[in-house]
Amino acid sequence: MTARSPRASSPKPRLPGVLLAGFEPFGGETSNPSWDAVRALHGERIASHRVATCCLPCEFGTSLVALRQAIAELQPALVLCVGQAGGRAQLSLERVAINIDDARIADNAGARPIDEPIAADGPAAYFSDLPIKAMLADLRAAGIPAEVSQTAGTYVCNHVFYGLMHALHRSGVRGGFIHVPFSPAQAAYHPGAASLPIDTVSAGLRIALRSALTHATDLRIAAGAEH
Amino acid sequence: MTARSPRASSPKPRLPGVLLAGFEPFGGETSNPSWDAVRALHGERIASHRVATCCLPCEFGTSLVALRQAIAELQPALVLCVGQAGGRAQLSLERVAINIDDARIADNAGARPIDEPIAADGPAAYFSDLPIKAMLADLRAAGIPAEVSQTAGTYVCNHVFYGLMHALHRSGVRGGFIHVPFSPAQAAYHPGAASLPIDTVSAGLRIALRSALTHATDLRIAAGAEH
Amino acid sequence: MTARSPRASSPKPRLPGVLLAGFEPFGGETSNPSWDAVRALHGERIASHRVATCCLPCEFGTSLVALRQAIAELQPALVLCVGQAGGRAQLSLERVAINIDDARIADNAGARPIDEPIAADGPAAYFSDLPIKAMLADLRAAGIPAEVSQTAGTYVCNHVFYGLMHALHRSGVRGGFIHVPFSPAQAAYHPGAASLPIDTVSAGLRIALRSALTHATDLRIAAGAEH
Amino acid sequence: MTARSPRASSPKPRLPGVLLAGFEPFGGETSNPSWDAVRALHGERIASHRVATCCLPCEFGTSLVALRQAIAELQPALVLCVGQAGGRAQLSLERVAINIDDARIADNAGARPIDEPIAADGPAAYFSDLPIKAMLADLRAAGIPAEVSQTAGTYVCNHVFYGLMHALHRSGVRGGFIHVPFSPAQAAYHPGAASLPIDTVSAGLRIALRSALTHATDLRIAAGAEH
Repeated sequence: MTARSPRASSPKPRLPGVLLAGFEPFGGETSNPSWDAVRALHGERIASHRVATCCLPCEFGTSLVALRQAIAELQPALVLCVGQAGGRAQLSLERVAINIDDARIADNAGARPIDEPIAADGPAAYFSDLPIKAMLADLRAAGIPAEVSQTAGTYVCNHVFYGLMHALHRSGVRGGFIHVPFSPAQAAYHPGAASLPIDTVSAGLRIALRSALTHATDLRIAAGAEH
Repeated sequence: MTARSPRASSPKPRLPGVLLAGFEPFGGETSNPSWDAVRALHGERIASHRVATCCLPCEFGTSLVALRQAIAELQPALVLCVGQAGGRAQLSLERVAINIDDARIADNAGARPIDEPIAADGPAAYFSDLPIKAMLADLRAAGIPAEVSQTAGTYVCNHVFYGLMHALHRSGVRGGFIHVPFSPAQAAYHPGAASLPIDTVSAGLRIALRSALTHATDLRIAAGAEH
Repeated sequence: MTARSPRASSPKPRLPGVLLAGFEPFGGETSNPSWDAVRALHGERIASHRVATCCLPCEFGTSLVALRQAIAELQPALVLCVGQAGGRAQLSLERVAINIDDARIADNAGARPIDEPIAADGPAAYFSDLPIKAMLADLRAAGIPAEVSQTAGTYVCNHVFYGLMHALHRSGVRGGFIHVPFSPAQAAYHPGAASLPIDTVSAGLRIALRSALTHATDLRIAAGAEH
Repeated sequence: MTARSPRASSPKPRLPGVLLAGFEPFGGETSNPSWDAVRALHGERIASHRVATCCLPCEFGTSLVALRQAIAELQPALVLCVGQAGGRAQLSLERVAINIDDARIADNAGARPIDEPIAADGPAAYFSDLPIKAMLADLRAAGIPAEVSQTAGTYVCNHVFYGLMHALHRSGVRGGFIHVPFSPAQAAYHPGAASLPIDTVSAGLRIALRSALTHATDLRIAAGAEH
């Protein structure tokens, strides 16, 4: 991210910013498709906003420190975090973040919290601020496989999603989270696993951001689950 | 449920009650394994509590009216609601209920709410009051396949789970929700679908109730999900 | 199995036999639901046949030696082998056995053949002799979840199925294979895995045997797969 | 395909041909990723062979008539048929074709054969002539998700695969079959379904063909299934 202070003599007003965050590799992988797809959009102009990107550590705690710092620096109008969901087949527009860490595997710093709140004084959950149904419709119309997800898990991704929403609460800045599948190169070593190429995911994130930035209210489309 | 007023001359003190609720069939099924498994436990004594049962309509709104009425009549110490999760393979101990209705299919009264809050003034979510990790350990030790679930969906089951937790909030009465698979008879007409026999599910619910009634605090066992 | 030679003075003629074979545990399991379900039927009379059972080692080669010996001793009218398919949710009526061993994991004797024929002079495959569509219909009608499977894999189960059909070829004795899910006790330690109780599987095998013994020709019911 | 007769004056000798066949849409889809991926390779030179392509009808019977005619015209050294496997996530290198049609859904001409042989006088199955393990290794090394499949189903794809192998039997021409996932545009309307972009599939087919053309014998790599 560049310095925030616009020069007084600047002929062009700076565009409002969008912060797009991906993650470093975890769980034995050597790459993380979230960051690979996110960084391709750095500097792009989408719906009169400029995209800045950052890569978060896959660690409870420090991931949120890094995210809050990036938000403080950029002062974005919207923050979209993106994480890897190995095994899922489509872009997952997350509906809700819950106030719990429950780690089946250790994070990159070796931490493995079990049933600990992310914010001791926070509510049980936050819903995404983003118009996930409109984003879903726009992605499908563009031929990008997408779905609404009712859980972001209980690992670092949910940790960051919840911490983001807690930080943004009543700030006027909107936040949300999207999970993405393995890349094909990863799936080549996970028998039977689904995948989407990085450029397909980047194209999907571009559409999702445009949709989020241009829809003031969401659409009424069913995308729920019986269980 | 029987009348609440104990006779003055009663030689035996009434046991505190547990309310166990199942659901009527929905989604084209002619039976619902949740109710079939629940009703088998009616009247049983578990950990010094007496089990009462009720069958809820698979309808947004009226399901909660019926549940609240049953709670008011029985004044139970604990309420466990049980619903069908066709396609899941194990008893699902639900961790969290979220404040949203989003119906992919119509309920039994024809209603199909989309992205409407269950309680306009309620928080985004409630966590289960039950010791789901202890219940998980006890079920596995007994050879009953069980898992912790991070989402109860956005249909009538989640609606009832959220409404239950909202009604019980700060009452001192504990509440929770368990999803159960199809019965074998149902799965026989759903190619490839998982199932568990009704008596296996009933045995599991008995263990789960005992576990919930005898654990004041939960165990620290990881049962989270990366996404 | 008992001695084959009926006594001359025997007042009751011996019933023709059915050989039902299960397997010992493999792959780190301490039980095998195929044998647990099979042995419960030992000695039963089904459709005027007497069921004899045997437990096969989970080993390439010796499994077939044991099976052929059991067939030679019993001289059955029909042979049904039953194996564990951990992860499948229903009784799988196998359609076809293929002439190849390709072991992802070692067998119980440490062997791990790759792309070796089971019978060097045998055909590429044998279809089951059993009326799998009639068996499917009877199982479903009885509320037992069942499906036709187009592959028995390439491990010891397919090895035994192929070797059985090769041994029975042109003998007038019919043969077939059914895969069964994990037991609930196994699934309790395989997160998310499907299961069926042993007695449900035994009941299913009884129905399947009766169906196989009483249908001279199969039904015309679609049970194929697009891929 | 072009005329077969090389002109006497032709200065450049014609390359030996490879026939690559895809399918027209079926099952309610408006496109078929097999044909879309195949046609992109038309005319390419791979390992000193020239690729010719054809699109087969999704019909029992006529699909094989069209394939045999294309083979007669081109006189290829190798034939690879490619079909859609909606729901699968990776390129599926098919190991075996079985001599049965069993259609769950009608083909594009309305036919729905049940348990009918493809060749009345044919063997129960044919194994692929192609070095599927070498192809698997080459695809994975190139970052293309691939797997060996033990069943090509019982629908038109298996019908064509079996008919191809039956036609090529003892001809010296090698044949095989690969199933491919939905395209992203298709998966966008199949909730949760896996997909791979057409150009990823085309790249995979190019690698698979080169591998098949350059490996005289296959590698010894396990790629089997327990069931």
